[in-house]
Amino acid sequence: MFKAIISAEALQDAIKAVSAVVDEARFEIAPEGLSARAVDPANAAMVSLELSNDAFTLFEGTEGEIGIDLSRFVEILGMADRSGEVELELDPDTHKLDISMSGLSYTLSLLDPSTMRKAPSVPALDLPAEIAVSGSVFKRMIKAAEMVSDHMSMGVHDGVFFMEATGDTDHVRLDLIGSDLIRIAPAEVRSLYSLDYLTDISKGVGGAGEIVIDLGRDLPVVIKFEPTRGDCKVKYVLAPRIESD
Amino acid sequence: MFKAIISAEALQDAIKAVSAVVDEARFEIAPEGLSARAVDPANAAMVSLELSNDAFTLFEGTEGEIGIDLSRFVEILGMADRSGEVELELDPDTHKLDISMSGLSYTLSLLDPSTMRKAPSVPALDLPAEIAVSGSVFKRMIKAAEMVSDHMSMGVHDGVFFMEATGDTDHVRLDLIGSDLIRIAPAEVRSLYSLDYLTDISKGVGGAGEIVIDLGRDLPVVIKFEPTRGDCKVKYVLAPRIESD
Amino acid sequence: MFKAIISAEALQDAIKAVSAVVDEARFEIAPEGLSARAVDPANAAMVSLELSNDAFTLFEGTEGEIGIDLSRFVEILGMADRSGEVELELDPDTHKLDISMSGLSYTLSLLDPSTMRKAPSVPALDLPAEIAVSGSVFKRMIKAAEMVSDHMSMGVHDGVFFMEATGDTDHVRLDLIGSDLIRIAPAEVRSLYSLDYLTDISKGVGGAGEIVIDLGRDLPVVIKFEPTRGDCKVKYVLAPRIESD
Repeated sequence: MFKAIISAEALQDAIKAVSAVVDEARFEIAPEGLSARAVDPANAAMVSLELSNDAFTLFEGTEGEIGIDLSRFVEILGMADRSGEVELELDPDTHKLDISMSGLSYTLSLLDPSTMRKAPSVPALDLPAEIAVSGSVFKRMIKAAEMVSDHMSMGVHDGVFFMEATGDTDHVRLDLIGSDLIRIAPAEVRSLYSLDYLTDISKGVGGAGEIVIDLGRDLPVVIKFEPTRGDCKVKYVLAPRIESD
Repeated sequence: MFKAIISAEALQDAIKAVSAVVDEARFEIAPEGLSARAVDPANAAMVSLELSNDAFTLFEGTEGEIGIDLSRFVEILGMADRSGEVELELDPDTHKLDISMSGLSYTLSLLDPSTMRKAPSVPALDLPAEIAVSGSVFKRMIKAAEMVSDHMSMGVHDGVFFMEATGDTDHVRLDLIGSDLIRIAPAEVRSLYSLDYLTDISKGVGGAGEIVIDLGRDLPVVIKFEPTRGDCKVKYVLAPRIESD
Repeated sequence: MFKAIISAEALQDAIKAVSAVVDEARFEIAPEGLSARAVDPANAAMVSLELSNDAFTLFEGTEGEIGIDLSRFVEILGMADRSGEVELELDPDTHKLDISMSGLSYTLSLLDPSTMRKAPSVPALDLPAEIAVSGSVFKRMIKAAEMVSDHMSMGVHDGVFFMEATGDTDHVRLDLIGSDLIRIAPAEVRSLYSLDYLTDISKGVGGAGEIVIDLGRDLPVVIKFEPTRGDCKVKYVLAPRIESD
């Protein structure tokens, strides 16, 4: 059983964050709220979403699992007025999701969760550096790297967080200092990542005010943010590439 | 003979409404004003325009007929400042239309009206239900239906105006109540229409404040609106599709 | 040796003006400032840029020449905040250009100026008519001509500056009078130009407040403007086409 009411804005931002990395996802319903964990087909990027029941105006849910086509869900939620509310209800007979918003009722066919890939559990990571930047700085960093390469290094050197990308002829580097950097827990780290995934993730973060980046030495990066409010947590984990130099 | 001056905004909106459904149209000039009636190549959608001489700052016209390439006319009118005026004058020698606006003079070749299809006369329709909605609600309705199907039903049931569309897996329904509905003269009606045409029509209505929809049971729908002011009337008639259930 | 600091806005507008006509250009560095002159592959349009050292916050340069890929340079400058500053420095060892702006350091590989075409010197032109119009009027003129033809005449007749374009069926003419004309030094002139180049040039002028057009009878046109401030001068020279009537 699942019935919930939530602000359109909160749901739009949460689903958009997940859909940045995967096309479909399994959502787990529990009394504590809604959660999802999904991995991209190449097993390189993982996303997890935790939408606490506090994020909802109304939340009634017993344990269960539903599979959702995310691009379709994003499109449907795009019909909602951002300042309005969205009502979700699982029809126990048809096993479809009824989505209602300002007079509009949409009946969405669900995917069978048993046929969908399970997200592998994330190994415990020891990532010594933690950096917080604004969403706009995060996007600028990725846009700059895209100009020269399809890979980008992130790291901390002498207490300064940097991005670096090297192409066939050109080279770009961004040292984040001053007001561009919200806060840093430094450690000497550096890892290389594919820009394909970082570009997708930068679309998922939307207008987030703060992005937290956990980095290690040639280790996966963890990118965390909380769209709209603290009742919603999004986390991306992205595998590193091997630096060939 | 034909010479007229009109606000750019009024002419732009009127021509855009006609061009939403057909590429070219025959315009009739008469002392009372300018009018056009055209039908799409598949004979499924008809549009009529009545632009009264009151809509013009200056209107001098004797009985006559001209054929206009609408996409070209829309493009030319797009050069005009919306708050300015457009002057139209038929050159009796070359039989071309001189279009002037803020220093710019455009000489438009006309189409031979005798070679263009005549719009069939519309049979008298007995459409018992009449609904008025805002232009933005009308567009939202069509956009929602497009998400699941290429057909859309409109109807009135128990005094409530609704839209319904059914796709292979999903289903969407909009019950228009409260402030979304400007007014309704109810009757139990329901008809199915092709979204191809409704999408075109929704582009033609622009920012119209009020759209009037006349509906019957498996009958054509009549969609009427008055762009900018009451001196201009646009009417679409769209044939129904057969509901297969 | 070359090291300079300039407002991002001034540099963006200057480079955009040159890149409208050519893809790469040779820049000459001298104590007086930076200059470039380039001709398009068909030898029909030439552009010259003079960026005085007064346009810079800091300018240190000894005689030298660098070749720049303009589309790449425009893209890099697009990363800069328009209200910020850009620092340029030529690395004497790698012969690359270091471009810095708000923490971002971009190392741009240069083109070998010796392998690039030299812009031919412009023959002295006796262009008796000079007309000044706003950038928006200039763009409107070109947009109107594009609707009917791929060529456009400009000229002055009886003291009035006009544009005229004739297509297979339609014809458009713009007589510039009143507030659309900033000033005119008249003479009976008329020449025909390719719209391909004028369209490119109209993109290069950006939001320029004043465009000065020097015209003769079947002679090249000289189009001059000063982006942002007087310390930067851009000049286009465009060869005429032969009017066939």
